[in-house]
Amino acid sequence: MDLLPKCNANYVPLTPLTFLKRAADVYANRTSVIYEGTRFTWRQTYHRCRRLAASLHSLNIVKNDVVSVLAPNIPAMYEMHFAVPMAGAVLNAINTRLDAKTIATILRHSEAKVFFVDYQFVPLAREALRLLMGDHSQDFVSFESSFPLVIVIDDIDSPTGVRLGELEYEQLVHKGNPNYVVEDIQDEWDPIALNYTSGTTSEPKGVVYSHRGAYLSTLSLILGWEMGTEPVYLWTLPMFHCNGWTFTWGIAARGGTNVCLRNITSYDMYRNISLHKVTHMCCAPIVFNILLEAKPHERSQITPPVQVLTGGAPPPASLLEKIEPLGFHVTHAYGLTEATGPALVCEWQAKWNQLPRGAQAKLKARQGISILTLADVDVKDLKTMNSVSRDGKSIGEIVLRGSSIMKGYFKDPNATSKALKNGWFATGDVGVVHPDGYLEIKDRSKDVIISGGENISSVELESVLYRHPRVLEAAVVAMPHPLWGESPCAFVAIKKNADGKTDDVKESDIIAYCRKNLPRFMVPKKVEFLPELPKTATGKIQKFQLRTLAKTFEVSKSRVVNQNLPSKKNGQSNQSNTEIPRCTAQPHEHVLAMSRL
Amino acid sequence: MDLLPKCNANYVPLTPLTFLKRAADVYANRTSVIYEGTRFTWRQTYHRCRRLAASLHSLNIVKNDVVSVLAPNIPAMYEMHFAVPMAGAVLNAINTRLDAKTIATILRHSEAKVFFVDYQFVPLAREALRLLMGDHSQDFVSFESSFPLVIVIDDIDSPTGVRLGELEYEQLVHKGNPNYVVEDIQDEWDPIALNYTSGTTSEPKGVVYSHRGAYLSTLSLILGWEMGTEPVYLWTLPMFHCNGWTFTWGIAARGGTNVCLRNITSYDMYRNISLHKVTHMCCAPIVFNILLEAKPHERSQITPPVQVLTGGAPPPASLLEKIEPLGFHVTHAYGLTEATGPALVCEWQAKWNQLPRGAQAKLKARQGISILTLADVDVKDLKTMNSVSRDGKSIGEIVLRGSSIMKGYFKDPNATSKALKNGWFATGDVGVVHPDGYLEIKDRSKDVIISGGENISSVELESVLYRHPRVLEAAVVAMPHPLWGESPCAFVAIKKNADGKTDDVKESDIIAYCRKNLPRFMVPKKVEFLPELPKTATGKIQKFQLRTLAKTFEVSKSRVVNQNLPSKKNGQSNQSNTEIPRCTAQPHEHVLAMSRL
Repeated sequence: MDLLPKCNANYVPLTPLTFLKRAADVYANRTSVIYEGTRFTWRQTYHRCRRLAASLHSLNIVKNDVVSVLAPNIPAMYEMHFAVPMAGAVLNAINTRLDAKTIATILRHSEAKVFFVDYQFVPLAREALRLLMGDHSQDFVSFESSFPLVIVIDDIDSPTGVRLGELEYEQLVHKGNPNYVVEDIQDEWDPIALNYTSGTTSEPKGVVYSHRGAYLSTLSLILGWEMGTEPVYLWTLPMFHCNGWTFTWGIAARGGTNVCLRNITSYDMYRNISLHKVTHMCCAPIVFNILLEAKPHERSQITPPVQVLTGGAPPPASLLEKIEPLGFHVTHAYGLTEATGPALVCEWQAKWNQLPRGAQAKLKARQGISILTLADVDVKDLKTMNSVSRDGKSIGEIVLRGSSIMKGYFKDPNATSKALKNGWFATGDVGVVHPDGYLEIKDRSKDVIISGGENISSVELESVLYRHPRVLEAAVVAMPHPLWGESPCAFVAIKKNADGKTDDVKESDIIAYCRKNLPRFMVPKKVEFLPELPKTATGKIQKFQLRTLAKTFEVSKSRVVNQNLPSKKNGQSNQSNTEIPRCTAQPHEHVLAMSRL
Repeated sequence: MDLLPKCNANYVPLTPLTFLKRAADVYANRTSVIYEGTRFTWRQTYHRCRRLAASLHSLNIVKNDVVSVLAPNIPAMYEMHFAVPMAGAVLNAINTRLDAKTIATILRHSEAKVFFVDYQFVPLAREALRLLMGDHSQDFVSFESSFPLVIVIDDIDSPTGVRLGELEYEQLVHKGNPNYVVEDIQDEWDPIALNYTSGTTSEPKGVVYSHRGAYLSTLSLILGWEMGTEPVYLWTLPMFHCNGWTFTWGIAARGGTNVCLRNITSYDMYRNISLHKVTHMCCAPIVFNILLEAKPHERSQITPPVQVLTGGAPPPASLLEKIEPLGFHVTHAYGLTEATGPALVCEWQAKWNQLPRGAQAKLKARQGISILTLADVDVKDLKTMNSVSRDGKSIGEIVLRGSSIMKGYFKDPNATSKALKNGWFATGDVGVVHPDGYLEIKDRSKDVIISGGENISSVELESVLYRHPRVLEAAVVAMPHPLWGESPCAFVAIKKNADGKTDDVKESDIIAYCRKNLPRFMVPKKVEFLPELPKTATGKIQKFQLRTLAKTFEVSKSRVVNQNLPSKKNGQSNQSNTEIPRCTAQPHEHVLAMSRL
């Protein structure tokens, strides 16, 4: 074959910025953004982004500088997903639920040059900046160079006048040169975004996306969700979550309408869904509760179906059975910040429509199949690293490879090389492959309890505990066991009874309940009651704290013997206590298995 | 930003081969291919392709070798789209409608190492090979090294025993090592396919696609056509046309079913659509005629809607009005071999559903908007090369850039650098941009007639001629004009009248008809009758032959004066003959404007 070199006509670096340019060309007069009384067309959004990019440029923002933002799902937040990379910079959207200390850590670690702050978050940002300044109070020179320029974003629809420093977002947009020539992306491997992980197990890590990865993931998710043209997309999912699972860029690609939402209340959701005939939204399953628990005056008529992509946790059957008849059609996805959002989508198969609703819910709770731009997904045996059998039972670690995977962790080569090893990204999640090729997550690999050589899924055990009528919160971790190495230890918070008490539920009650509902070897050897389980700023349970606690517990030999006595009254067979029973869990039972988005 | 280098986990070359690997994983037991009584699943298709790749490997096929194939839309043709690149080779699917001489030219130019031939095309291939051998009859060494290995493809469903040489396709599949390790794509810029243009204007040129281009175009077309999962795709469009407009790879990406079709007859189409509940098909508008003209016994009940992507020519309103009520929903696309198939798709807008059917047909006849993976599409003024106004009137050349554009022409650096110039691929088609951003093609740039400084679209003029009840075929080219430089010359083939005669239609009749229906300056100055217009093997009119003929015509001065006399009886205003009237053509009138697929 001839050497046919690349040229500017046939090799253009892949970047989501082309989606906006194209939308401005081909969907020029369609509505791009709606936020209360404010509306823009795609031509306007493009021009606003160019102006903002021009202003960033005149503020000396150069290629690869980090621009941080702390804001809810408002138009400015959407625009920055294009304007910041248009200036050659890297967008760092910060989780607004974090505390000031963590935000200060992120600003310091990312070396943010500019920090955009929505007016609502000025108090939080002020505190974070105070902490950041504290670092440098003895060192004025360093302070000058490393402290970010702060720009407040006032509400575009109802300006409040709240300020933090001199500059305001709309001023920057209006002052920017409308003819600004967008910074050319020379290399699609260049960074576009920096997203910090929530840090369930350690310090937040800065995940870097390339233009290429963002572009391809965006296409994949439109395809995986089968999103057609002209979607009306409600911004319930925070844009700071993996850039809104790439739909910040995807709605431009589809010429859709972004319905922005400052507060995720049932009233605001129903009102916007009704008013703008919303067709699509993403959210964690917890949002279904908000919708279901809405009072009559908070509800509005919706035009079904509203397509809902959900992740972060599998949608429980009980919620699906209530939410779908309201006109919400749910698709389940699984992903991680490191995979640019969803990496698996539970693609629905037409034949499943024939099944009863309960069976459908179980299928839908599975994490599904790889998105198109992943080159490969596999589940590998934790010990041999061979692929597991597709039997829905054999447990292994989920590994991914392909262009949707992050470039790496910012300023953390050790963590990067640990995560991206032997040609795979190790998710740290363990799961199974069903005979039809669909994956189902069972646990975080570090949360698997290895008891007498058997893997016990903490998530499976927790899902049983959650079905106990008095259990409010539950988490299971490993504790040392003199005979079996590890054994499960449950931490439980109990719902108050009619008298407002919780102490009527005893450890023995919970253990007896587990014996009824679990194979013997999976029954927790200890149940510890806590008023509340320790959580991160994003509401995830911090198992590493519980694990530290569990290490202090000791199971006495006598207890071991006692627990292994046959217990006919619980309907268990008379199993030998020297033989470890095999895991008898069936597929589809684990509706609470974790999806990590 | 840190330097975060690419690694095998996060940078995997883009190639359509991943679509097949993924389909075998996640759609393993779904039907991949149906051909009469033969059926395969995606797992089987994957394994068959691996085996064939292994056999090619053992036949000493190495990286970048060309493998040619002459076959209709049968399973083998589909499998080769994966198996050939799996062996590292480049697929050259040859148009089965070409003559032996052109096929010999292609085999010679491509330096094909292997030549697969469907049993039906053995006589044609034998003749081509005889011509090819003729080149080398004096030079045995050269003959040995450059003559391709010939492998016949017998009918998999009803074997005929026809052979051409020793080897047969199914043998190769069965002998291949099932554990063959697929050749790694090291560079996504590597070639995957070589497609020869039809040569309307010159010798066929070999258009080379990269793995990257093929991958991205595939995603774009699924998106542009909004093809969901589990499509049942009928192979009416030849796979040798830009690799079936990338749907060879696309159906694997979507886990769909390929319904193969040896003969494109109305009976076979209806039968397969009905039997397999076909959801999607691609074809030229001419196929609508075949479907519409089917006799009652050739028809079967279809399950609407069947989504039809059409190109090659815009679908005429008259056909749309007949075909759509039958349950076929038509989408119009425009493209070129050089753009890996469709580059523009006439994306339908919901609001257009409110319009009357005729208005819808006119909108649908426009070529539309760029597919997602093109970085940019523009229409540039032929003289200044500035972008034209979006007014639906200003004519310019359509230029494209992005990852869907070919690598270049095989062994033709001159043609390559001429086509890929200044960062754009020049399509050679001229068109307009409507205010809503949708493009409409007016002509091939070389077919535009420049008369007294005004651009005359030959296609526009032809569309008027085609509406004349007695015109069977029409083509308009430029002929020299002593006053205006060029003027339009029409070549027309006339339908026979009841007496089987054509000579009752005179030149003056046609000219009078044109005067009634066209602005004066556009009226042909000469009409030449031919029994049939010269065409390529694919049925496209060869204007370059007509242009040569027209150059021999001369318009006398006296005729010029005569033609410019006012002619009140034809309802034309009394225009001065020194002033060239402006083009008054309205948008949407040109339903026969050419789409080049």
